[in-house]
Amino acid sequence: MNDTRSKGRRSRRRGATGADSSASFAQRPFTKLKQTYQPVAVASEDQLEAIHQASLRVLSETGIRVLLAEARRIMREAGAEVDESTEQVRFDPDLIMEKIATVPSEFTLHARNPEHSVVLGGDNVVFDMMASAPNCSDIDRGRRTGNQEDYRNFLRLAQMHNILHVLGGYPVEPVDVHASIRHLDCIYDYITLTDKAYCVYSLGEDRIADALEMTRIAHGLTMEQLREKTCLFSIINTNSPLQLDIPMMQGVIDLARMKQAVVITPFTLSGAMAPVTIAGALVLQNAEALAGIAFSQMVNTGAPAMYGGFTSNVDMKSGSPAFGTPEYMKAQHVGGQLARKYSIPYRSSNVCAANTIDAQAAFESVFSLWGAINGGANMLMHGAGWLEGGLCCSYEKTILDIDLLQMVAEFLRPLDTSEDELALDAIGEVGPAGHFFGTAHTQARYRDAFYAPVLSDWRNFESWKEAGEPIAIQRANAVWKQRLAAYQAPSLDSAIREELDAFMAKRKAEGGAATDF
Amino acid sequence: MNDTRSKGRRSRRRGATGADSSASFAQRPFTKLKQTYQPVAVASEDQLEAIHQASLRVLSETGIRVLLAEARRIMREAGAEVDESTEQVRFDPDLIMEKIATVPSEFTLHARNPEHSVVLGGDNVVFDMMASAPNCSDIDRGRRTGNQEDYRNFLRLAQMHNILHVLGGYPVEPVDVHASIRHLDCIYDYITLTDKAYCVYSLGEDRIADALEMTRIAHGLTMEQLREKTCLFSIINTNSPLQLDIPMMQGVIDLARMKQAVVITPFTLSGAMAPVTIAGALVLQNAEALAGIAFSQMVNTGAPAMYGGFTSNVDMKSGSPAFGTPEYMKAQHVGGQLARKYSIPYRSSNVCAANTIDAQAAFESVFSLWGAINGGANMLMHGAGWLEGGLCCSYEKTILDIDLLQMVAEFLRPLDTSEDELALDAIGEVGPAGHFFGTAHTQARYRDAFYAPVLSDWRNFESWKEAGEPIAIQRANAVWKQRLAAYQAPSLDSAIREELDAFMAKRKAEGGAATDF
Repeated sequence: MNDTRSKGRRSRRRGATGADSSASFAQRPFTKLKQTYQPVAVASEDQLEAIHQASLRVLSETGIRVLLAEARRIMREAGAEVDESTEQVRFDPDLIMEKIATVPSEFTLHARNPEHSVVLGGDNVVFDMMASAPNCSDIDRGRRTGNQEDYRNFLRLAQMHNILHVLGGYPVEPVDVHASIRHLDCIYDYITLTDKAYCVYSLGEDRIADALEMTRIAHGLTMEQLREKTCLFSIINTNSPLQLDIPMMQGVIDLARMKQAVVITPFTLSGAMAPVTIAGALVLQNAEALAGIAFSQMVNTGAPAMYGGFTSNVDMKSGSPAFGTPEYMKAQHVGGQLARKYSIPYRSSNVCAANTIDAQAAFESVFSLWGAINGGANMLMHGAGWLEGGLCCSYEKTILDIDLLQMVAEFLRPLDTSEDELALDAIGEVGPAGHFFGTAHTQARYRDAFYAPVLSDWRNFESWKEAGEPIAIQRANAVWKQRLAAYQAPSLDSAIREELDAFMAKRKAEGGAATDF
Repeated sequence: MNDTRSKGRRSRRRGATGADSSASFAQRPFTKLKQTYQPVAVASEDQLEAIHQASLRVLSETGIRVLLAEARRIMREAGAEVDESTEQVRFDPDLIMEKIATVPSEFTLHARNPEHSVVLGGDNVVFDMMASAPNCSDIDRGRRTGNQEDYRNFLRLAQMHNILHVLGGYPVEPVDVHASIRHLDCIYDYITLTDKAYCVYSLGEDRIADALEMTRIAHGLTMEQLREKTCLFSIINTNSPLQLDIPMMQGVIDLARMKQAVVITPFTLSGAMAPVTIAGALVLQNAEALAGIAFSQMVNTGAPAMYGGFTSNVDMKSGSPAFGTPEYMKAQHVGGQLARKYSIPYRSSNVCAANTIDAQAAFESVFSLWGAINGGANMLMHGAGWLEGGLCCSYEKTILDIDLLQMVAEFLRPLDTSEDELALDAIGEVGPAGHFFGTAHTQARYRDAFYAPVLSDWRNFESWKEAGEPIAIQRANAVWKQRLAAYQAPSLDSAIREELDAFMAKRKAEGGAATDF
């Protein structure tokens, strides 16, 4: 990134608010995080190969049902065997391997503020705000159906926190906005309330076309130029087991053609839509991911695609999905190993099944983070806010997760063992039975030596009791309100805003997109 | 272990209760856990070498103050340079390396029930019950000073839960028992209320002698035989920085001579008793650990010793110790790397600074577990119960931690990718858009397919709300009461009990141990 150039480009703005509300509280700058340490291998090389081979067998023997005729046509032309009567498509292993070989091992996802662009793949780690909750909550007002006001507030929080690199989708679904124009309003809010990169939904050609046009405007590009610059991504879920539906496949076609990124994510719940064994669920996940990723390359060789892992288990008593379980962690690790085997960027998630922010919410989330980080995830979806297995985005959980993500980022900061950090002089100076508080070595460093947590209460029991025994969720409640109050919109070139406004007016006048899905 | 022999040996018991209350609820059997995956390297080889060399320099240049004259004498005879005026002892790097080379890389810690013996070192992982809290709490009765009733209850819970392999010390200090005889009562309770291996405190020669005698009786050994069988261990804390106190060094002498295990654990709080940099704190930790471990070998070549890592950071605003922080995690990992470099078994901990069982308690604990497991810990002290930076052992936290440890154990169970687990037949049978609930593959496995959590509430929001919105700490409260009520003492040979009782009576008549420490 060229700071001078980016500043120059934005210098012509008029009426921009120009604020940086991320400076309204103490936090680390927006940083490109790296996988500092080697990911952990949960599967041996032989086991990985066994899963890989089994998933290729699934694709060649059973195949996958593809509901979109155009997708089947593209697959057939690429060499797949298509049975039109069952809509099932079978792939030769060589075809799959040849296609996935052209996926870029890393790519840049551009934000309209180039300082917020991120690299996906390689040893990069990117954290996303939570996405797609139908409900939201805070402890003052309780749980409610998603709406535009809360939607916007979550975008504001995502914008303000440097640890959230990307918008992974709508943090909460604003169901008070009519579905025909919801995508327009939501993307408009993405662009005006934040300057980070974002995810759009694959809900048909019209919506994707609108998203591309608005993104083109936001970035000040021609459509030709957008085709050379990945500025958005879309999550492509399979209908496990072994089915690819129409809007998702349409999304792959429309986005891959424009060189925008698709994140193929099978939702393989072990015991329900996937086999009850983790190895079996991974075979299914891998088969579906490979089919979707290979398809993106059939559409446009070299288009950016990611391998999404979302395998978890269900509660066999109730059928409820579980998250942050030992089984989920294992699947996260092996998913990462598979993605690295194919040199494809890997997506995982920060998820839990808890209904409130108690110990369960925290341990399930940290187990998810453990699995994602040691599993080598390049992009962590649902980084902040996720509650209730994804059915609710919580203001307080957003703050808790931001704290957790910041701690993970701190853990990933490489150990410094330079001469001065080894502190031999300080150790010699203090000697036996002394204290380091007063040393010059400590005095020079104490302010920034350690991560300063957002929520942790490190007072002793007596002081904590006297303060009314506050628990983490209460502290989080105070924090989000305080921070949100300091929000200011990022600057936006007024010419861009005018063009966006005109497009919005036109599309709304046309009635937006059809809602017959 | 030879089950037949051990059953034969215990067959002569009379009046034994013979119960196994660990069967009163569903849990995995007592299992020898393994580090299934490669530990994570936080330090590069060069960085590790830099820390190692720096700590050798500390030991040769500044040295360490040793308060016990006999320890200085042993060190001088082994070749160390002793300055009697300052009580400082300096060690040549070659002397340190030569001494630590004789530490066994793994050893068996024997329990009186041989089925509960554990191996420490190598790729073994052992979990201990929490130790040494001055207070305890539950949500019914609140927080209170440690006492014998609670002490015994925690032992009972530790005995009942197969995931807790070892007693790491007194879960809570029974201060209502006079200090002169507390060790007698506590060890008697270890032996009679549990049949697991345990930790004794290094609080002077008399107490160690009593512990050895009681352990000899419990195992049915002669003192000669005990010298060949490691049946207990003691935590040896250094007085950081760079000081070894009298009872701790006496403990090393008395235990190493008897081939009982010492766990040398510097309490190097970065920013307080250790440098404010993690690298510097690790240099100090390593110097102190190496000095203590080398000393154990000067006392008795080949005596079992462990490398204890406890480096954390303090809150630089208040000086309070913090736990489960990113800095703590880094130190845990590097501590493990150092221990493995020396082929010495490694001890870490499950710790937090929270005052109650909220999200903070859970995330700090899981971060600690992450650091311990990926750091390659062989023994996890304070596995269950730890709250308030160690100032309180909580009944509810005990249950939460047991759940967490069980999940970690589940994560460590090797992935199974056998033909049947890959589920190719089931995937083919279900085909596109089907469901796995009803398949034979699922039906044959669903009962034990996944870890069944103790505390997690996986109901949907509506059902959970209707049930009164229970949070994890409330569920934990119900669980410990229910489980504790089912406790039954493990069997104990009545001849052993009589011998123990006689010893107790004699020592109590003698007034126990001096309390002038």
